[in-house]
Amino acid sequence: MRIAIVGAGALGLYYGAMLQRSGLDVRFLLRRDYQAITTKGLHVRSVNGDFYLAQVKAFRTPEEIGVVDLVVVGLKTFSNAQLGKLVRPLVGHVTAILTLQNGLGNEELLAETFGPERVLGGIAFLCSNRGEPGVVCHLGEGRIRLGEFSAGLTTRSEKLALLFNDAGVPCEPVADLRRARWEKLVWNIPFNGLSALLGQDVTDILACSHTRELVRELMLEVISGANAQGLSKEINGPAFSEQMITFTDQMNHYRPSMQIDREEGRPLELEAIFAIPLQRAVAAEVMMPRVDMLYRLLASGEKRA
Amino acid sequence: MRIAIVGAGALGLYYGAMLQRSGLDVRFLLRRDYQAITTKGLHVRSVNGDFYLAQVKAFRTPEEIGVVDLVVVGLKTFSNAQLGKLVRPLVGHVTAILTLQNGLGNEELLAETFGPERVLGGIAFLCSNRGEPGVVCHLGEGRIRLGEFSAGLTTRSEKLALLFNDAGVPCEPVADLRRARWEKLVWNIPFNGLSALLGQDVTDILACSHTRELVRELMLEVISGANAQGLSKEINGPAFSEQMITFTDQMNHYRPSMQIDREEGRPLELEAIFAIPLQRAVAAEVMMPRVDMLYRLLASGEKRA
Repeated sequence: MRIAIVGAGALGLYYGAMLQRSGLDVRFLLRRDYQAITTKGLHVRSVNGDFYLAQVKAFRTPEEIGVVDLVVVGLKTFSNAQLGKLVRPLVGHVTAILTLQNGLGNEELLAETFGPERVLGGIAFLCSNRGEPGVVCHLGEGRIRLGEFSAGLTTRSEKLALLFNDAGVPCEPVADLRRARWEKLVWNIPFNGLSALLGQDVTDILACSHTRELVRELMLEVISGANAQGLSKEINGPAFSEQMITFTDQMNHYRPSMQIDREEGRPLELEAIFAIPLQRAVAAEVMMPRVDMLYRLLASGEKRA
Repeated sequence: MRIAIVGAGALGLYYGAMLQRSGLDVRFLLRRDYQAITTKGLHVRSVNGDFYLAQVKAFRTPEEIGVVDLVVVGLKTFSNAQLGKLVRPLVGHVTAILTLQNGLGNEELLAETFGPERVLGGIAFLCSNRGEPGVVCHLGEGRIRLGEFSAGLTTRSEKLALLFNDAGVPCEPVADLRRARWEKLVWNIPFNGLSALLGQDVTDILACSHTRELVRELMLEVISGANAQGLSKEINGPAFSEQMITFTDQMNHYRPSMQIDREEGRPLELEAIFAIPLQRAVAAEVMMPRVDMLYRLLASGEKRA
């Protein structure tokens, strides 16, 4: 099975390395890390044990990679304007496309361009970041929940989940991808948003009673937005928000990706994580005033940057 | 008439200088500027024309000032724990106390300590800041609306207004001080809060459509809180918020006091401008979710500082 990794940042490099280590033919589309990886290979510094891939199939353009069986998309969503161009040369008759990107709207974008039947989405619970070129750091977690964009459980989604599990990545196929996406937003909206706005990591945010309470209020708003989307099963607001906060209490000063993006001067993933969820909530006649306010505060900072 | 200025920052120095220039006996309680003013006098750099007071009655303690007819309080509200101690030596049988401080709760504090009949409150529409020691800069505006804490219009409030008018400070006596205080909060809450949080001046805030809209939403929440307080006359939300925004559009990159406080590492006036108004709204069963969120975001930053 031939796999292409598009968007080889902290997420793409880690999952790609895990898949290659399990014996699969993985081809990385690289920019920043191309030189380092072709000359020195790829180092994975992982909480589960470091490993090293001496030979990595690295490419600068998707045309050099050619058609594959599976495209794994890890591109930052603020680069989605390039997504079609990057994926097209990789797509043949039976190619499946799995986007592990953040937020909403990514499956729709791929479905419009390549047809809904090709598209799967996955939610990655992964704490990772990039080290120097040629190095990726896996700080914790790593599991994936994936599902079909235009169907429920399929043989394909179950096979894909097995592929990740065999590679040491816990992976669960889900019947309702939309519900899984919204569940992830319940974490992403407060923690990515507040960490980027305030320059505080998740432990700092939860240590202050003011922001801890705000996290809970934001989560409850997102859950009310989610439950208006006609999900297969409603999310239980109090229980799920409590569970997410308890889960995050165990993280040790984790810096969400949006905090790192802002600190490093990159754009923020505001469209996928905030604007599209807000539009979907409004379309379902649900107001999320605190989420909207957080979005505006972050967007205002973007304008100045 | 003998007047003491307590809290001689940008506001106290400016109004005290205007009152002294009109011929009144003004005594300044000083800390930072004591040395400069006693040796070199007080320079006022004003949009209405600079002036200079060579002789200024400067004191380091209220005991040295002694009893006066009028105490004008310009202390930052985060120093209110010292207010009683600073004012007590100035108060004789007929002394009136006029607080020009920001937000809510200041008249109540003075009334508890010195009796409600002594207390007046004033809302200052003043753009000023401190220069080097011995210099105060008047950037624009300057008018005051003042009223009794425990009565409507009185001869005393009308006389005080005349005193300011005679000194070149436009001053209007108001029958409903509470309404005037809440009207000022309609400006203070969005502009002080957002400028301190985002590090943007009022012109930047209004230039971005995201924050401009947020200003309007915050104003409407404050007005709904105000109108639940049993004011003599309700505030018209759409008209008043539009008027406040238009008024602020004319300011040229003005930096609200809370932005300057944060930039200079001082505490923020969160209690008077946010916490007490939020409590009063909740007591009247009105929710101000965006105001509450802005308060929490600012309070979280304070905790870290």
